[in-house]
Amino acid sequence: MANTFGHSFRISTFGESHGGAVGVIIDGCPAGHKIDLERVQQWLDRRRPGQSHLASPRAEADQVECLSGLVQGISLGTPITLIVRNQDMKQDHYSDLQDVYRPSHADYTYDVKYGVKAPSGGGRASARETIGRVAAAAVAEQVLEALLPDFSVVAWVDRVKDIQADTSKAYTRAEVEAHPLRCPELSVQDRMEKLIIDAKKAGDSVGGTIFCSVYGCPVGLGEPVFDKLEADLAKAMMSLPASKGFEVGMGFASTQLFGSQHNDAFQNIDGRIRTATNRSGGIQGGISNGETIEMRVAFKPVATIFKDQETVTRDGQALTMKPKAGRHDPCVLPRAVPMVEAMALLCVMDHYLRQLAFQHARGPHKI
Amino acid sequence: MANTFGHSFRISTFGESHGGAVGVIIDGCPAGHKIDLERVQQWLDRRRPGQSHLASPRAEADQVECLSGLVQGISLGTPITLIVRNQDMKQDHYSDLQDVYRPSHADYTYDVKYGVKAPSGGGRASARETIGRVAAAAVAEQVLEALLPDFSVVAWVDRVKDIQADTSKAYTRAEVEAHPLRCPELSVQDRMEKLIIDAKKAGDSVGGTIFCSVYGCPVGLGEPVFDKLEADLAKAMMSLPASKGFEVGMGFASTQLFGSQHNDAFQNIDGRIRTATNRSGGIQGGISNGETIEMRVAFKPVATIFKDQETVTRDGQALTMKPKAGRHDPCVLPRAVPMVEAMALLCVMDHYLRQLAFQHARGPHKI
Amino acid sequence: MANTFGHSFRISTFGESHGGAVGVIIDGCPAGHKIDLERVQQWLDRRRPGQSHLASPRAEADQVECLSGLVQGISLGTPITLIVRNQDMKQDHYSDLQDVYRPSHADYTYDVKYGVKAPSGGGRASARETIGRVAAAAVAEQVLEALLPDFSVVAWVDRVKDIQADTSKAYTRAEVEAHPLRCPELSVQDRMEKLIIDAKKAGDSVGGTIFCSVYGCPVGLGEPVFDKLEADLAKAMMSLPASKGFEVGMGFASTQLFGSQHNDAFQNIDGRIRTATNRSGGIQGGISNGETIEMRVAFKPVATIFKDQETVTRDGQALTMKPKAGRHDPCVLPRAVPMVEAMALLCVMDHYLRQLAFQHARGPHKI
Amino acid sequence: MANTFGHSFRISTFGESHGGAVGVIIDGCPAGHKIDLERVQQWLDRRRPGQSHLASPRAEADQVECLSGLVQGISLGTPITLIVRNQDMKQDHYSDLQDVYRPSHADYTYDVKYGVKAPSGGGRASARETIGRVAAAAVAEQVLEALLPDFSVVAWVDRVKDIQADTSKAYTRAEVEAHPLRCPELSVQDRMEKLIIDAKKAGDSVGGTIFCSVYGCPVGLGEPVFDKLEADLAKAMMSLPASKGFEVGMGFASTQLFGSQHNDAFQNIDGRIRTATNRSGGIQGGISNGETIEMRVAFKPVATIFKDQETVTRDGQALTMKPKAGRHDPCVLPRAVPMVEAMALLCVMDHYLRQLAFQHARGPHKI
Repeated sequence: MANTFGHSFRISTFGESHGGAVGVIIDGCPAGHKIDLERVQQWLDRRRPGQSHLASPRAEADQVECLSGLVQGISLGTPITLIVRNQDMKQDHYSDLQDVYRPSHADYTYDVKYGVKAPSGGGRASARETIGRVAAAAVAEQVLEALLPDFSVVAWVDRVKDIQADTSKAYTRAEVEAHPLRCPELSVQDRMEKLIIDAKKAGDSVGGTIFCSVYGCPVGLGEPVFDKLEADLAKAMMSLPASKGFEVGMGFASTQLFGSQHNDAFQNIDGRIRTATNRSGGIQGGISNGETIEMRVAFKPVATIFKDQETVTRDGQALTMKPKAGRHDPCVLPRAVPMVEAMALLCVMDHYLRQLAFQHARGPHKI
Repeated sequence: MANTFGHSFRISTFGESHGGAVGVIIDGCPAGHKIDLERVQQWLDRRRPGQSHLASPRAEADQVECLSGLVQGISLGTPITLIVRNQDMKQDHYSDLQDVYRPSHADYTYDVKYGVKAPSGGGRASARETIGRVAAAAVAEQVLEALLPDFSVVAWVDRVKDIQADTSKAYTRAEVEAHPLRCPELSVQDRMEKLIIDAKKAGDSVGGTIFCSVYGCPVGLGEPVFDKLEADLAKAMMSLPASKGFEVGMGFASTQLFGSQHNDAFQNIDGRIRTATNRSGGIQGGISNGETIEMRVAFKPVATIFKDQETVTRDGQALTMKPKAGRHDPCVLPRAVPMVEAMALLCVMDHYLRQLAFQHARGPHKI
Repeated sequence: MANTFGHSFRISTFGESHGGAVGVIIDGCPAGHKIDLERVQQWLDRRRPGQSHLASPRAEADQVECLSGLVQGISLGTPITLIVRNQDMKQDHYSDLQDVYRPSHADYTYDVKYGVKAPSGGGRASARETIGRVAAAAVAEQVLEALLPDFSVVAWVDRVKDIQADTSKAYTRAEVEAHPLRCPELSVQDRMEKLIIDAKKAGDSVGGTIFCSVYGCPVGLGEPVFDKLEADLAKAMMSLPASKGFEVGMGFASTQLFGSQHNDAFQNIDGRIRTATNRSGGIQGGISNGETIEMRVAFKPVATIFKDQETVTRDGQALTMKPKAGRHDPCVLPRAVPMVEAMALLCVMDHYLRQLAFQHARGPHKI
Repeated sequence: MANTFGHSFRISTFGESHGGAVGVIIDGCPAGHKIDLERVQQWLDRRRPGQSHLASPRAEADQVECLSGLVQGISLGTPITLIVRNQDMKQDHYSDLQDVYRPSHADYTYDVKYGVKAPSGGGRASARETIGRVAAAAVAEQVLEALLPDFSVVAWVDRVKDIQADTSKAYTRAEVEAHPLRCPELSVQDRMEKLIIDAKKAGDSVGGTIFCSVYGCPVGLGEPVFDKLEADLAKAMMSLPASKGFEVGMGFASTQLFGSQHNDAFQNIDGRIRTATNRSGGIQGGISNGETIEMRVAFKPVATIFKDQETVTRDGQALTMKPKAGRHDPCVLPRAVPMVEAMALLCVMDHYLRQLAFQHARGPHKI
């Protein structure tokens, strides 16, 4: 279960950062849908490191290969397996870290739990694991677009460290992709970029937040009690590497308001029931209400830095770790944008299928 | 699945706020443990409304009854069923709301999804559903205490609206329970209390945040990739009614730091590997690292207020809702404290059992 | 999971034979269906012991009570909880067996696994556990009848020990219920009855087989690869107490034929594709093909007999067990008929919901 | 879920018979075990067609490749992905069957369910899907052997059509593998072989039964109520292509006995509690009792025959199908032997892990 996400649209990811391949099985993709592998590749390219001077120089083609589930580009209803070969396996790059627990990495906890450390160079804890998620989301997106005409998901970097973008605007994915920072607000891009470059020069790292909007989600997705839509979104986002916080709607800021300031009044707009405001973030009682679903995810500054750090070796010896230059991002945020979108897509796809069965099996009685 | 939480220690809750009973089945409680129903009752009493002038006057005994799974107070290893009868069913209390969608309640989304509205008076969306969770947690706590000597979970109200307690201190549950607010910091209790009472007088509501610490959690709990410990905690907390945000460790505040400020250095303290700081909040790479697990949950101001509100009826007619006095808390936070503790206990219990199998099945080889 | 069955229509049963109550939670019942508790009661009455001179004299009312999930007899879409109080708790009846492992009972294995023996008088291994299954099936049947016009499930005793009924005929449930043996074939009823009564007089027990037909099942239920319809039916039936074998279609007899004798030719009958014969038993490739689903379940002679038996005590002492008269059936078959029907209903209900989502999410392309 | 088996040791298979690859992800393999890929290859070689004149001539290398989960042959505790490339993709071989529903194949039901037919040449319904199961079982076997010293699983062909081997003897896997029929009883091998060759010459097929013994299984595996060990074994076996029946212990034959003839008396043999006979087949109350687990699986005569058959086309036209020579076994039994062993291994591995957690979390009290 640990490597599986979803109930009806289930994905299982596999692969270590330095093994033979990483990938995903999608179990539960409906049959008869056109799945364009070019679009899957575009998603992987968005996630891939080395896209700009802001990101890690690790140069991998990350070419997707489909092993099963599609014939002539059409989904068969059987498991779709997508893999990406690992090409850039510099195991020795990390070899001098073999016996050192890097601070705020997973080295120590993995070692206690599995008896396994460095050879896998981050192993399943590496952001490379998210390739499988992103590939699966690229499939889900194509199915959702076919089923839901106005559906789209857009995420963007809305804060880097203490530089906050204006979050009152809506953006298209094209606007977000126009700048390697994936922050579409022109007024803050330069300052954000300088902050990241300065951190990189200093051998340091920065974090920030990503905002995500789901447009065109139908009313009724989400299963009370435990599988509330926001609960599954929270799990999805908090399962991403380096994420430390999640909020939906006004989130933590909602706690600063009185109820009379926070409640969303209902209105009848041309025969459709809408809310006048959307402080709830598109979900009420755990179920989507047809408004835009809005959420924010916090990503800590990445743990890999290029400064001396105090730590211990595997056998408990104190040590000052002096890392050599390596391939890591000073700021994970731009690459985390497609990961956040991916998890949102996977959640919605799964809940859409879950809802569909019960919607079509409903009896005639109302109460 | 929607009403079930956990993989190895699985709870399934049931019951509407105004049906015959609410309760829980616990599937996966290990056999041979002494389970004191008095302690279960104490947990239910903590959760129960009407405990002080700060909370809802709904007066229910909430007496727990065990239908299965225990003989002579010992767990059989079979499903433990705990129920609480609903005694205070004033269905007519809500009857004039039958056809009105209350703002920021689940009325509208439940109606679209299930074709069901008011008769169940909140139904599964009511906080009364959490009785089952709290009862199950009271069982889990007793099992965990038997298995893990230094284990405990303590939550408290650390902010009401804009009144923030000092979060640098650790508290015992007794200290938290000493005041009906469940904020153990003496210096802010009066101001918090006044804020809530003023809101109540104004027919309004307030929200805030709850901080939760898990002490004595062993190293190694949490299953990468999707079932990371913080991901399951996030889901658990975000499945609570009125929760809008979750963070672990430094959470959103971590994004304001450089990596060099955030990383937790490892130390060898008397042969045990510890971190010098605990900014990670006791979890690294999705796995507990033996430090105190720390998290915070945001609860919005409750939707039920006693002011005029604009809304629509079930058939789409605009309407100004003028609620009469009813039984609702102006601030859900004090009662949410045991709910947050409950979800933390259920998560840890579940991951402890999951970990146990793999720990004892591990082979002799290390890498 | 151990006490839960189903993926989309999930039931969780609970309760020991001599605890406070037995029952079931149904999670996933679609909303808006009329559920008649009288029909649930009728199912429980069919399952109940003491209905005739052929069965156990245990006299319990087995009155069903609904704790949640229904309002005014309509399903809310929330968990439906049905319980039956245990009224006839003669714990001392078994008290002299406290420390004896009864041959071919679950006493020994439960004791090793759970450290628990006799006080629960059969505990979860008792046929009394099936009350929850039967109650859930009575709900499923009402939903399936509302959704599928020609749907029905009928099981009957087709062999007692070596007395075989003619299985070439189809029967209605009314025909089956007309005789307490639940074997509708008049020509063998007297001999079967005499065999059972003679076994009872001799303090012995007999087994046999039950045949079950599912009529009106739509084409397309069943999920390859592991959740084939016949695989889930096999699991369902083999989870019943005392069942030792399962077969679908011609089952074991199919192995005596050449492929050319066994294959079912397809035909176009008035625009509907049918098979000329039904040796496959209504399932091909794990998926229902629209023909009648046919299966058979073998039940061993029940382990409780009234003869001296060699065994050991809990501490390993050899002992000749001399049981007093007690309340047990010499033949479980008549009461197992509704249990077999129940498991078939639960399987079909679950797979119907599973299928529904993917059917409605299918894309336009065919291959 | 459809393509996933197991709760704690979960395998997910993927791949169509004529797609890019088939394979499996194993999620839940304990860390630190030596996994020899040569042994995995040996299992695949046993399953592979074309091993003798009795089987299909399809000539594929079926070379296993490991994509993840192992480093230096040691399990990491992360998902182990094993794939086999499809090399012999003669899609045109079947192309004239594109629009014909082959009798007793999955063509019709897959087409209704998925809108997909012939291009995948059997697709997921092909026995080629079992490559993933067999590869996973080869991993499970190595882990179980490391954890349980006396553990082994052996299956063999015990009947071909009406030629029955003596089932009173126990065999080693080496004895079974000594003859391509995988029936170790010398006295019937020649007759069985002649029967199969004659059927092949006649363009026909035959079925039969496979007997399987699990030696050295510890007491306590199996989870009442629904996940009884025999219930999960039944599901496992009935999920194999062409299986039509399952029985455990004496199975259907048990129904011919009186209870006094069937019960297994307990004995204390050198301080270990054993049964004098093993009519229960090693499982009582759904839980293993430490005796040899014994079961039998029925396989129908395979549907592919080389005789004229009546059927219909995809658009409902009647047609006499005149198949050309192709690559199919006249008797699936010899190749099904490792498949049956594989499913038994996967069940035991899964239940062993499930049991381990609860065994180590058990409290001190007994009842």
